[in-house]
Amino acid sequence: MKPKSWRESYTELKEIVVPPHCNHHGTVFGGHILALIDQVAGVTAMEHCGSSSVVTLMMDRVHFFRPVKEGQLLHLQARVVHTGQSSLEVYVKVYGKDLSGPQPKAWLTCEAYTIFVLVDAEGRPVKAVPPLLLETPEDHALFQAAAARRQARLEEARRLRSTT
Amino acid sequence: MKPKSWRESYTELKEIVVPPHCNHHGTVFGGHILALIDQVAGVTAMEHCGSSSVVTLMMDRVHFFRPVKEGQLLHLQARVVHTGQSSLEVYVKVYGKDLSGPQPKAWLTCEAYTIFVLVDAEGRPVKAVPPLLLETPEDHALFQAAAARRQARLEEARRLRSTT
Amino acid sequence: MKPKSWRESYTELKEIVVPPHCNHHGTVFGGHILALIDQVAGVTAMEHCGSSSVVTLMMDRVHFFRPVKEGQLLHLQARVVHTGQSSLEVYVKVYGKDLSGPQPKAWLTCEAYTIFVLVDAEGRPVKAVPPLLLETPEDHALFQAAAARRQARLEEARRLRSTT
Amino acid sequence: MKPKSWRESYTELKEIVVPPHCNHHGTVFGGHILALIDQVAGVTAMEHCGSSSVVTLMMDRVHFFRPVKEGQLLHLQARVVHTGQSSLEVYVKVYGKDLSGPQPKAWLTCEAYTIFVLVDAEGRPVKAVPPLLLETPEDHALFQAAAARRQARLEEARRLRSTT
Amino acid sequence: MKPKSWRESYTELKEIVVPPHCNHHGTVFGGHILALIDQVAGVTAMEHCGSSSVVTLMMDRVHFFRPVKEGQLLHLQARVVHTGQSSLEVYVKVYGKDLSGPQPKAWLTCEAYTIFVLVDAEGRPVKAVPPLLLETPEDHALFQAAAARRQARLEEARRLRSTT
Amino acid sequence: MKPKSWRESYTELKEIVVPPHCNHHGTVFGGHILALIDQVAGVTAMEHCGSSSVVTLMMDRVHFFRPVKEGQLLHLQARVVHTGQSSLEVYVKVYGKDLSGPQPKAWLTCEAYTIFVLVDAEGRPVKAVPPLLLETPEDHALFQAAAARRQARLEEARRLRSTT
Repeated sequence: MKPKSWRESYTELKEIVVPPHCNHHGTVFGGHILALIDQVAGVTAMEHCGSSSVVTLMMDRVHFFRPVKEGQLLHLQARVVHTGQSSLEVYVKVYGKDLSGPQPKAWLTCEAYTIFVLVDAEGRPVKAVPPLLLETPEDHALFQAAAARRQARLEEARRLRSTT
Repeated sequence: MKPKSWRESYTELKEIVVPPHCNHHGTVFGGHILALIDQVAGVTAMEHCGSSSVVTLMMDRVHFFRPVKEGQLLHLQARVVHTGQSSLEVYVKVYGKDLSGPQPKAWLTCEAYTIFVLVDAEGRPVKAVPPLLLETPEDHALFQAAAARRQARLEEARRLRSTT
Repeated sequence: MKPKSWRESYTELKEIVVPPHCNHHGTVFGGHILALIDQVAGVTAMEHCGSSSVVTLMMDRVHFFRPVKEGQLLHLQARVVHTGQSSLEVYVKVYGKDLSGPQPKAWLTCEAYTIFVLVDAEGRPVKAVPPLLLETPEDHALFQAAAARRQARLEEARRLRSTT
Repeated sequence: MKPKSWRESYTELKEIVVPPHCNHHGTVFGGHILALIDQVAGVTAMEHCGSSSVVTLMMDRVHFFRPVKEGQLLHLQARVVHTGQSSLEVYVKVYGKDLSGPQPKAWLTCEAYTIFVLVDAEGRPVKAVPPLLLETPEDHALFQAAAARRQARLEEARRLRSTT
Repeated sequence: MKPKSWRESYTELKEIVVPPHCNHHGTVFGGHILALIDQVAGVTAMEHCGSSSVVTLMMDRVHFFRPVKEGQLLHLQARVVHTGQSSLEVYVKVYGKDLSGPQPKAWLTCEAYTIFVLVDAEGRPVKAVPPLLLETPEDHALFQAAAARRQARLEEARRLRSTT
Repeated sequence: MKPKSWRESYTELKEIVVPPHCNHHGTVFGGHILALIDQVAGVTAMEHCGSSSVVTLMMDRVHFFRPVKEGQLLHLQARVVHTGQSSLEVYVKVYGKDLSGPQPKAWLTCEAYTIFVLVDAEGRPVKAVPPLLLETPEDHALFQAAAARRQARLEEARRLRSTT
């Protein structure tokens, strides 16, 4: 298969935070952000695979750094950072931004790594994910970091099994 | 503060999977399950704290083991497993179940650990989370596992920083 | 068929009241509560029947005693109280609860009796509802009350026909 | 207060049944119909009272006669049939209709009687509901039937108390 | 085909504006009104055609004259004004109304002209739209205005092509 | 005020078409697309103005060229093309795309021009829209076309008044 650049499937999403997605203090639900992450990362994975038969396998841990409020902007940016034969990893950055004020500044609300699998009609993995084209030093660094995270997950799992 | 048992805030949620929450292959979105986890864990945290001023701080990584389909049952069970002074951790198990057939069996779809913080009106942490009453060996084991996971997260973070 | 206890299908649902389900005075819509009752009672009926082919036949009258507001908790509890050959009755209690304050107390917002029918693919009744196991005096009392309500509905219908 | 005809607040609602409101067999949820009834009856009550400070007090029992399917039309018609000093009763008829075929015919899916109360900002009843103008024999008959239903509810409540 | 009066498919919709459909200033989204217009006009077109196989071809420009706020009433009225062989035009008037105050007055928020096409299962136009019965001078005037708008659209298109 | 390039507020949105937004033939509602256009154009206008106090004034006519189906991708692209003192015009292109098949191709589903007004807390126009920086021949052409459309709207209005 011909390798594809992450630029071909890069996906953004912006939305103004509205009341239905907020708690009664006016800050957006963590769960709403998680659902948006899954949605935007899913579209990215589908575009990379050239198929909509893609399901979520894992969402890595997500830290919420700073809340986003009603009337502020949520801005998500998703790019493929790693590919295997039947799976691929998408990195999503989520920014908040307050449009009022003379110099609106964005802040990182959270970031997430999501792994998807390409499947057939019965839900079985299909080895047809186009490899990721690594062009820049950043592409290489993100690819290696994904491999390191994978390694860390395996070690953590082993460690937790022996501890508990 | 008087310690509270997890039984006082234990929360369940069952729902039949309907078309709006499914992709066009008829399996429920990972993002919908994540939003449900945040919702049911949030109610649990609010009940334990006796306050609805609770925000999501982190959702630990979630593996999706087996899909759930339209017409099948989603069953979530959430219990507090760890408390700090201003934060608490909720463990959520998510089962799928096919009601048709002579002997309906449930399967684990995913499990998640979510950490919440009790905050004041300005969103600052408040040290008023009731401590968790540890009564049974299972209570102690889950509490220790939460502490081990916390340790593992710190080590992983250090490891990834030195690697990448 | 083997009788089943109501405990096997007992279903709860808790949710914090959010803006989308409130009128502009901040109290939850009666219609939203009715939809939740139908949902939680439906899951209960499906679990008892071991089938998701269950449709709503009747919802008995519902009195709303006291409103529930944004930020408060809605808590629904549903149990089977009566079974016929192809139909079954589910009793739902709906509580409101204000989590703030030192001693949060719950109050009964409304209660409802809903009757469901087990149907085949063409929507025709199927005589395959497992009989309800009556174990405790409360089980017997609720079963008899359901029969009395059924009688009262028939008498009321006759009365209204002769009056109007 | 000047009496008002039911014609001044008469409200209709038509919608094509879409997948999000259906179970996986393609028939509309009872709970969705109940929420629509509450919505259309609520608008009717608000228009009659000239105020949006109106809350649902009771929904009388609702029988579902025949299901409505995806792609078919739901048609609701709501009119005020009875008024007290601070409350009023709205009668809603719900029809299903299949638009395909040479001679589309409508059928009654269910009918409902809903009672609303006019309240102040603290939720207390306000004696300011305009009396209903009774012009035709049908207006008088519906008014009397509402009074008879009210009587029947009181008698049934007494009967059930002495039985159970 | 037998001509049909617009009265046979005339459709209204009233709804109280609720938080989920408002921006954080409490006024309803233009996009929500456009979606309601498409919905109510679509039902009108389906009723006229006696078929639910109807898709939106064009929505003519819509001016928003005056905002409608949370707690106020939206009132839409839709009628067929023009028919071709496989298409038809529906005219929708949208009013806002503030129910509080002694003499509630309605104001025109916007009006829209929407064109629908009757299609077969493959989405191809079907020449089976019943002709519109023109009975009153108003019916004739609206029909001619629709023809004039059509002419104006063609001229504008030509004009813009030669200008730009 | 300092002029701003359209690049600073350019906004995209991609979503896979899901059942809740489709009619029962599996094609997306025109009304859903119109609501998405208003949403994505609104975010663009807010980013350009550096304020979320922006309301929809007009949506120019929208032609739907070709339907988009369940499982296909909707891709919206919005850019500012014209600014006045208190208003601005946003141009939105909407593409459909079928991800399956060896060479996925996108097609134009519709395009729309939406005008927004910057308002104060009372909803009155505010003359504080940053002027649009015109850098490329395309920027100039789109700006002039917007002026021509404005002229055409005025002439059409005059024409229709004299005709009808």
